Amino acid sequence: MPIVTIELLEGRTKEQKKQIAKEITETIVKNGNAKPEAITILFHDLTTDDIAKGGKLLSEK
Amino acid sequence: MPIVTIELLEGRTKEQKKQIAKEITETIVKNGNAKPEAITILFHDLTTDDIAKGGKLLSEK
Amino acid sequence: MPIVTIELLEGRTKEQKKQIAKEITETIVKNGNAKPEAITILFHDLTTDDIAKGGKLLSEK
Amino acid sequence: MPIVTIELLEGRTKEQKKQIAKEITETIVKNGNAKPEAITILFHDLTTDDIAKGGKLLSEK
Amino acid sequence: MPIVTIELLEGRTKEQKKQIAKEITETIVKNGNAKPEAITILFHDLTTDDIAKGGKLLSEK
Amino acid sequence: MPIVTIELLEGRTKEQKKQIAKEITETIVKNGNAKPEAITILFHDLTTDDIAKGGKLLSEK
Repeated sequence: MPIVTIELLEGRTKEQKKQIAKEITETIVKNGNAKPEAITILFHDLTTDDIAKGGKLLSEK
Repeated sequence: MPIVTIELLEGRTKEQKKQIAKEITETIVKNGNAKPEAITILFHDLTTDDIAKGGKLLSEK
Repeated sequence: MPIVTIELLEGRTKEQKKQIAKEITETIVKNGNAKPEAITILFHDLTTDDIAKGGKLLSEK
Repeated sequence: MPIVTIELLEGRTKEQKKQIAKEITETIVKNGNAKPEAITILFHDLTTDDIAKGGKLLSEK
Repeated sequence: MPIVTIELLEGRTKEQKKQIAKEITETIVKNGNAKPEAITILFHDLTTDDIAKGGKLLSEK
Repeated sequence: MPIVTIELLEGRTKEQKKQIAKEITETIVKNGNAKPEAITILFHDLTTDDIAKGGKLLSEK
C-alpha cells in the first residue's frame, strides 16, 4: 500500500514521470517488502507562483 | 475539524463530488463525533499522466 | 485508485474508524465509479497540540 | 526543513501569495529555529467545486 | 477555509507551535481575505529517521 | 525542490528507509533535473488501524 506523493515544479515530461514512477516502484519493492501493484505514485505539478523557498516565490527570483 | 482529502482521477462531475461530499460528511458526523460545519472535504483531480500503479502511469496502460 | 486521507483529532476508536472506512468506501463506489479494492483510506491522528483553529491550538482553548 | 502546504480557494493573486510566503517564512524562522533557505511553502489552489464545508460544495451555496 | 499543514522535525515546544499558529493565521487574515475562524493549521512532527535531504536520512548525518 | 511523501505501513527499519531515500533521490536527480540537496523525502508511518483497503482496516483482515 505505499503511497508516494511527489510535489514538483511543472515541466517534467510524461517520459520523465514514467521513468521516475518505474524506478521508485522498483526501489520500494526491493527495499520495502511491497508488491508493485500495491504501490501508487501521485505527481502534483506546481507553478513557480505556487512554490516559495527562503521566503520568496520561485517566480520572484 | 476533520479534514478529508480525496486524490482521484479527473472526470468525476460536480454532481458526483456533491454526493460524495454529502455522504462522507454524514458518515463522519454519525460515527466520528463531529459537527457537519466542522468538516472540510477537498478534492484533488489528477490526470492519467500524474498517477502510477504497479510502476506504470495510467496513461501508459 | 481514489486515496482518501482523513486528518482528525486523536481519540476515535478502531470501531469508529472501521465504520467510517466502510461507509466512505461505499459512497465512493456508488457515486464515483471505483471498485472497492482500489480505494485506500488513511487516518492521521493528531493531538490537541497539533491542531489550531482561529489562531489558537486546541490545547489552549 | 519545514514544509508548509496551504490549501486554499483559488483567486489569491501572486502579490498575496508573495506576502504570505514571506511572512510565514519569517514566523517560522523567528519561532521555530529554522533557516529561511530551509523553508519550503507550497500553495494548492482549489476551485469551488473541489471544496466542501458542512457537506456542501462551495459552488452549491 | 485555508488549511495549512506544516511538516517539521519534532522537538518544537507547544509554546513555539502556539506562536507559529497565531502568526500564520494573522498573515493569512491580513493578506488572504480569510476570517481567522476559517483557518485550520495542522502540525506533523517527524523524527530524524523520517526525513531525508540530499539522499540521506537526518539521522545518518 | 521536489518533495516526496511516502505513506507506508509502520515496520520498515531505518536501514530500509535509508536505502529507499537514497535511491529515490538518485532517480529524481537522474530523470527529473534536480540537485540532490534540493530533494526532501518524508516518511509517514501508519498502523494497521489507520489504513483501509476495500473498505476494511488492515487490522480487521
